[in-house]
Amino acid sequence: MRNVRLLIAYDGTNYLGWQKTSTGPSIEGSLEIILSQILQQHLSLQAASRTDAGVHAHGQVVNFLTENTINLPKLKHALNALLPKDIVVLEATEAALDFHPTLGACEKEYHYRLCTQQIQMPRHRLYAWHYPHSLDLAGMSEASIKIMGTHDFAAFCNFKKNAHYESTVRTVSDISIELQDNGELLFIVRGPNFLYKMVRNIVGTLVYVGCGKLEIASIPHILDGKDRTQAGITAPAHGLALHKVYY
Amino acid sequence: MRNVRLLIAYDGTNYLGWQKTSTGPSIEGSLEIILSQILQQHLSLQAASRTDAGVHAHGQVVNFLTENTINLPKLKHALNALLPKDIVVLEATEAALDFHPTLGACEKEYHYRLCTQQIQMPRHRLYAWHYPHSLDLAGMSEASIKIMGTHDFAAFCNFKKNAHYESTVRTVSDISIELQDNGELLFIVRGPNFLYKMVRNIVGTLVYVGCGKLEIASIPHILDGKDRTQAGITAPAHGLALHKVYY
Repeated sequence: MRNVRLLIAYDGTNYLGWQKTSTGPSIEGSLEIILSQILQQHLSLQAASRTDAGVHAHGQVVNFLTENTINLPKLKHALNALLPKDIVVLEATEAALDFHPTLGACEKEYHYRLCTQQIQMPRHRLYAWHYPHSLDLAGMSEASIKIMGTHDFAAFCNFKKNAHYESTVRTVSDISIELQDNGELLFIVRGPNFLYKMVRNIVGTLVYVGCGKLEIASIPHILDGKDRTQAGITAPAHGLALHKVYY
Repeated sequence: MRNVRLLIAYDGTNYLGWQKTSTGPSIEGSLEIILSQILQQHLSLQAASRTDAGVHAHGQVVNFLTENTINLPKLKHALNALLPKDIVVLEATEAALDFHPTLGACEKEYHYRLCTQQIQMPRHRLYAWHYPHSLDLAGMSEASIKIMGTHDFAAFCNFKKNAHYESTVRTVSDISIELQDNGELLFIVRGPNFLYKMVRNIVGTLVYVGCGKLEIASIPHILDGKDRTQAGITAPAHGLALHKVYY
């Protein structure tokens, strides 16, 4: 038995997210169909992060078990030839039999792009949230320090059917906000794991601080209150990308 | 009567090009419908460049005549609110009555993006030609110098129904090839005006030089021969963007 690890990137625009669903195309479903064709077997895929509809990935990690002895560079080549062009396989390698992309991950890094300019150039429209208002970058950075660390993040978690968290305590190891050459703001959020829509709620809350709808000093109270309605909005999916998973 | 000049940008992926056609969506058609709704009149649009199907624009210049006294910042705002998100109006200003975007242009600058890496990241797939082979950049630059200047560019012109050129002599004022931070090659081609698919044929020919399919020394012979089949391929549309028009 071999445990095959794939590093993949995708444009999530045309998918309902990572997870297979009967209602439309998914990354998992698309990958599974092509892999099954190549390997002639039924497969069960695991991914480091179940990215939501419209969310992108620069470095999603996926694994599956197989008895097939296919050469892995050839497998990568075959996958890239057969997959739709919005999903690519960057690496295909053999992992230890006990490797699990979700359970083994020690940290995930998400990137969120925000365009605050009056007009967003068309080619960025699917990869950055267009929010044409001036934002207080220093204030957002100060607020991000109050979000970092280990807290109960219930106020930053959306309700999801069938999601039962034993605890809503999570650790955000780092948040940085960088102004890019093209004028976009890039939020880099890192942590071992996140609640449902937590990264997008962190970004939405920081944007609310940046435009004065929330005060920096309110962040600890929002965390303490554990009330989703007190934090900022959920930033739209298309600005988010799973950038890298650390093991 | 007012002569209104629009500076627009678009993602050409979902359009059959600038020019209105009965066979599918065009930039001209989309802009005309929305403008007619706002101004309540029939309009005739002129553009600096009739970009082809799939070609993008960062700075296309368009004009139309109107008796309407609408405030132009308001017109720009209304257009951006009503146009599909892959077309944006960057500026709306009043021009001299004799301003014509095509006839008045003294130079056009086109950008062509090329990804030579083994794997192209999904978000670049609609904006750069994926040609995963190593290219001789110095050789391509040397060949580009031989293309620059005033020549008969018949060998770099595709046949187009209803296109009757009085002459196929054109001037290419500059070609530069730059390696970008993301690993893409950016070709910048400038000139007063170009023949049908001439920029894409220049890029395709330079790529043939870069991968050894054509010799640098063959360029003058290709120009002299005026035979399209002797030059390189037509580089695909999606790598090309009309970057700027100079007046």
